[in-house]
Amino acid sequence: MKEIDLRSDTITRPTKGMLQAIMSAEVGDDVYKEDPTVNKLEEKLATMFGKDQALFFPTGSMANQAAIKLHTQPADQLICDKWAHVFNYEGGGASFNSGVSCKLVDGHRGMITAAQVEENINPPDFYHSPLSTLVCLENTTNKGGGACYNFEEFKKIRKVCDEHNMGLHLDGARLFNALVAKNEDPKDYGKIFDTISVCLSKGLGTPIGTVLIGDNDIMKNAIRIRKILGGGMRQIGFMAAAGGYALDHQVERLAEDHKRAAEIAEILDAQSYIDEVEPVETNIIIFYLKNASDEADFMKNLQQENIRISNMGQGKLRIVTHLDYSEEMHQKFLKVLKNMMI
Amino acid sequence: MKEIDLRSDTITRPTKGMLQAIMSAEVGDDVYKEDPTVNKLEEKLATMFGKDQALFFPTGSMANQAAIKLHTQPADQLICDKWAHVFNYEGGGASFNSGVSCKLVDGHRGMITAAQVEENINPPDFYHSPLSTLVCLENTTNKGGGACYNFEEFKKIRKVCDEHNMGLHLDGARLFNALVAKNEDPKDYGKIFDTISVCLSKGLGTPIGTVLIGDNDIMKNAIRIRKILGGGMRQIGFMAAAGGYALDHQVERLAEDHKRAAEIAEILDAQSYIDEVEPVETNIIIFYLKNASDEADFMKNLQQENIRISNMGQGKLRIVTHLDYSEEMHQKFLKVLKNMMI
Amino acid sequence: MKEIDLRSDTITRPTKGMLQAIMSAEVGDDVYKEDPTVNKLEEKLATMFGKDQALFFPTGSMANQAAIKLHTQPADQLICDKWAHVFNYEGGGASFNSGVSCKLVDGHRGMITAAQVEENINPPDFYHSPLSTLVCLENTTNKGGGACYNFEEFKKIRKVCDEHNMGLHLDGARLFNALVAKNEDPKDYGKIFDTISVCLSKGLGTPIGTVLIGDNDIMKNAIRIRKILGGGMRQIGFMAAAGGYALDHQVERLAEDHKRAAEIAEILDAQSYIDEVEPVETNIIIFYLKNASDEADFMKNLQQENIRISNMGQGKLRIVTHLDYSEEMHQKFLKVLKNMMI
Amino acid sequence: MKEIDLRSDTITRPTKGMLQAIMSAEVGDDVYKEDPTVNKLEEKLATMFGKDQALFFPTGSMANQAAIKLHTQPADQLICDKWAHVFNYEGGGASFNSGVSCKLVDGHRGMITAAQVEENINPPDFYHSPLSTLVCLENTTNKGGGACYNFEEFKKIRKVCDEHNMGLHLDGARLFNALVAKNEDPKDYGKIFDTISVCLSKGLGTPIGTVLIGDNDIMKNAIRIRKILGGGMRQIGFMAAAGGYALDHQVERLAEDHKRAAEIAEILDAQSYIDEVEPVETNIIIFYLKNASDEADFMKNLQQENIRISNMGQGKLRIVTHLDYSEEMHQKFLKVLKNMMI
Repeated sequence: MKEIDLRSDTITRPTKGMLQAIMSAEVGDDVYKEDPTVNKLEEKLATMFGKDQALFFPTGSMANQAAIKLHTQPADQLICDKWAHVFNYEGGGASFNSGVSCKLVDGHRGMITAAQVEENINPPDFYHSPLSTLVCLENTTNKGGGACYNFEEFKKIRKVCDEHNMGLHLDGARLFNALVAKNEDPKDYGKIFDTISVCLSKGLGTPIGTVLIGDNDIMKNAIRIRKILGGGMRQIGFMAAAGGYALDHQVERLAEDHKRAAEIAEILDAQSYIDEVEPVETNIIIFYLKNASDEADFMKNLQQENIRISNMGQGKLRIVTHLDYSEEMHQKFLKVLKNMMI
Repeated sequence: MKEIDLRSDTITRPTKGMLQAIMSAEVGDDVYKEDPTVNKLEEKLATMFGKDQALFFPTGSMANQAAIKLHTQPADQLICDKWAHVFNYEGGGASFNSGVSCKLVDGHRGMITAAQVEENINPPDFYHSPLSTLVCLENTTNKGGGACYNFEEFKKIRKVCDEHNMGLHLDGARLFNALVAKNEDPKDYGKIFDTISVCLSKGLGTPIGTVLIGDNDIMKNAIRIRKILGGGMRQIGFMAAAGGYALDHQVERLAEDHKRAAEIAEILDAQSYIDEVEPVETNIIIFYLKNASDEADFMKNLQQENIRISNMGQGKLRIVTHLDYSEEMHQKFLKVLKNMMI
Repeated sequence: MKEIDLRSDTITRPTKGMLQAIMSAEVGDDVYKEDPTVNKLEEKLATMFGKDQALFFPTGSMANQAAIKLHTQPADQLICDKWAHVFNYEGGGASFNSGVSCKLVDGHRGMITAAQVEENINPPDFYHSPLSTLVCLENTTNKGGGACYNFEEFKKIRKVCDEHNMGLHLDGARLFNALVAKNEDPKDYGKIFDTISVCLSKGLGTPIGTVLIGDNDIMKNAIRIRKILGGGMRQIGFMAAAGGYALDHQVERLAEDHKRAAEIAEILDAQSYIDEVEPVETNIIIFYLKNASDEADFMKNLQQENIRISNMGQGKLRIVTHLDYSEEMHQKFLKVLKNMMI
Repeated sequence: MKEIDLRSDTITRPTKGMLQAIMSAEVGDDVYKEDPTVNKLEEKLATMFGKDQALFFPTGSMANQAAIKLHTQPADQLICDKWAHVFNYEGGGASFNSGVSCKLVDGHRGMITAAQVEENINPPDFYHSPLSTLVCLENTTNKGGGACYNFEEFKKIRKVCDEHNMGLHLDGARLFNALVAKNEDPKDYGKIFDTISVCLSKGLGTPIGTVLIGDNDIMKNAIRIRKILGGGMRQIGFMAAAGGYALDHQVERLAEDHKRAAEIAEILDAQSYIDEVEPVETNIIIFYLKNASDEADFMKNLQQENIRISNMGQGKLRIVTHLDYSEEMHQKFLKVLKNMMI
């Protein structure tokens, strides 16, 4: 059997149907906005979220970085969870690209509350401190183990942002996992957030691509920022076609990833060598070995079965289910976990 | 007949063979450097130019911007021609991304001399002035009408850079046009330049992609800078496959684009309504109408024949030949030019 | 009696002796490094701390910001306490001027440990995360209530920095308070820290001026950075003369400020309306009212006696003793505190 | 006799009256805007130029850099003469601090025309190019030999700026020289320019200090930018007092500097070893030796007489008259020039 790669859902490859969509894509020069497939995808997502505009980016990092730039001035401060992708895994881009600092909040599983946002806002008239102008949230949370926000908290955070004249951006690297898991409506997200980056890769299975969505006032400079960052591509409709296919055919099946993740968590929870499994809401399972010193053995045992997962250090491990993790692989993996001796 | 679009060679679409290469590409997650097609393309180009490393970027702008960042510190100054793409058409990225200023040199057709470089270097010990740390050249030149440098001038500029401890970057947006037109060896370029961005789009016909090439010392941070700018993509091997195909099958045919460009220039030169045609060395023709006021009529006449070219204002016009400009289109276009009444 | 202003030690005015020193200063154009009084002050402080060089800055913020720039590249990350002046009160300058982010550590009274530094260092090879290249400490701590580090902790932090190839900067806004309070030798600081900003204002009583101290390798670009930030002044020897006078005549008397601060703390501690007084090590007293709601009354009572202190919100208050707070004022203030009814 | 230093007017030292003003200054903490002498100076200059606000900066470079930041967004482009101080002598600050690029115009003696401004504006909708949002002028021009604009040209440039929604900043490093030389009214400048940096050093003789002047809309963030750059000083009223004294007592005497400069130029013009003397409008004389190879001899001859001037290279030399250049020195210098043999 092929390798079972559960390190991340970023490793998914196009399905046959998606490859066919790529092959038959009609393309043009997107720098001139003449690529019909890109234009169609952007319109589709803008409509889906009830916003004026959408813009295609090569990566989620660039979409997030562009959003931060669109919302802020150099020296401003954004508020985010201490584990936020925008602070930790985009290479320091918020400071590099936008000159902004991040006020880190000690959230729960990567999620922060309206109260925490409020108490971390700097007074606007005290010019010694940076201006707090943006809140960045993640849903589902990556380092928080795929946790999903309660939608009511979003509404409260929006209220705080309105009261303090702050923007609100959503890093939607795995937004469709949340939408499917909690049966939410994208239009409700469109009403809360000023900008949303929606990733088409990961569980949706496209090779590349994230779309940034927002209304005209904030998005009017997005294409300029994309150009400056080097994201204005030519006949990128081939990749946009994959995204369009994913939206039409590969969203609902995320429920399967979630179901399998829950089953894995259940099995793990019953094993003697496991200390704790974090609650599983979507496709990410974070768990802890009873003895951190068993880490190497555990990883080696999996490797012998041609299975790869992520080692986060000190006995903390991560599994991510996805499109390329089949039912057959799933059954084998469950069996391996149940039979493992450490 | 289909529209004849001569505005730019950026509008080319993949050939059948290239589409086949895209479809059959083996891909992986390039953020983990696990995409075999990307890795192969990078190795191929590094070898071709005799350099240690190459790195795939979504666009030429990002490859150039990354190079500028790799060579400079904030507040440094780079020296380039007044028409340089890095100064004029990358959205102000050199200042935005790297905090550097550009000392603009009044070159000839987008090309500058070693003497001009030397006289524009600021004294390193006079801290009032920015440090001059980088020279950026273009070959062929875009706004210079596809002009090619005399290779001896490169050697002289390299010498000046060495004497003043400056880096030397080549914006190779249309480098293969120069290589084919002047029958030059990529390895000779590798010996002169510290970094080269080689575009696989434009005349080569791939949808997207530019590769930055350099030795280990300068390239060791390139992947970090690419991440920061948002250029770390996942299964981008599909696009890299197109690039590999282009290098194998679509380089030599650039000579056809050059031949057709020369023929167009010859016909233009003979028309009474034309004031001047700049020398044509590759695939770009820049020419001037006798009466700038005839511009609208000239463009309208072409439009009626379903032909598009670029209007650069004040009677200056530009034509670019490319892969999607067939012999049949060429004959029709020549006829239209000869018969036009203004 | 004149107003008793205990909001901060930044409000001190020159003594008669200092004014005389200003008046008789020999000056020159410091941009050309021809101001003998500035040069002398810089040499004096470099020697005092056992470092190669020192450079005069108009403010402590600029000296700190220049140090951050000298130690880092854009996108790097520095590690500091969550209350650090460089993060909270320099207007967001670290991100604006240097493009760096701050990893905030949850320290004790503004002081962090070597262990905390170590666990907040990002892995250097994982290019998704910013490079950790600098640690910034404060001694005494401002928001930490004038607390002083145990010198042994400095040694441990230095060791961590050495192991991870990181720079170590000290924000010495009130360094002389620590030196006097703990009877420490400036040369020992010179051995630990790569750069130190030493403020001559505040308790030392000069109108303006901070000197940045370091060895040649790190300081060689300091004058260039100062120029870029706009800190290259002309005949600034007048202010440097004040600094020189302060070093000769107004250092030891900081002990008086500390003694008075301790006496104030003792009185406060005995009052029924006080909940808690933080330990007082130097010239800052932070204390908490039993009922936060009494804040307005407390401030008003002081105001009626022509006394000003800092209100930090929610029943937290701050007093800072200094050069312009005389014994007479001190006795009056103690009396007011003892007699106050809330 | 003391050295005659004609390298620059930046080397001037306070007069006795000015020293007296410094000593008797009433000061406070200007970070809290509690320094009465600074506040008074700012009001005086705002009123003089008919603008809402003024803000004191330690240097002209910082005032110019703050103005550029107040007018622009990162990636924008400003238009200035190729010799402009903001491009050439502020350490690359425009790119470092504000992320903007400079479009260099080939002006006459450091002065540019409205027509040149207009033809260098990038089209606002073409997002490949930086947005042109600011014009920076200098009056008098430094590298242009103290040349003064014709005020009518200012009006035309203002009109172009209005039509293109661009800001207009004046670098007034030697503005009072222009005001005196051309008998102009500061209020007329206030009507044309959005921001003006007015230097109090140089010919006016204060040790340090430049004031940035503008209306509320543009200036509202100036104090924040000054803080970020590290320019928020404490009891700086001592230096502001010098500025106030200069405005009251040392403006009109700039006419003497101009008269002496004209006399020096006249003498130089008559010497056989001189090729050309540029027209002298204020206090700067730029001239060229007949033989560039005589440069060393010429400088040496002056040195023997204890006279220093600036050598700009290749036979180009510069003399600047100022407050510390007395009539006695002047007569001696004229004599030296007349008697020199080369």
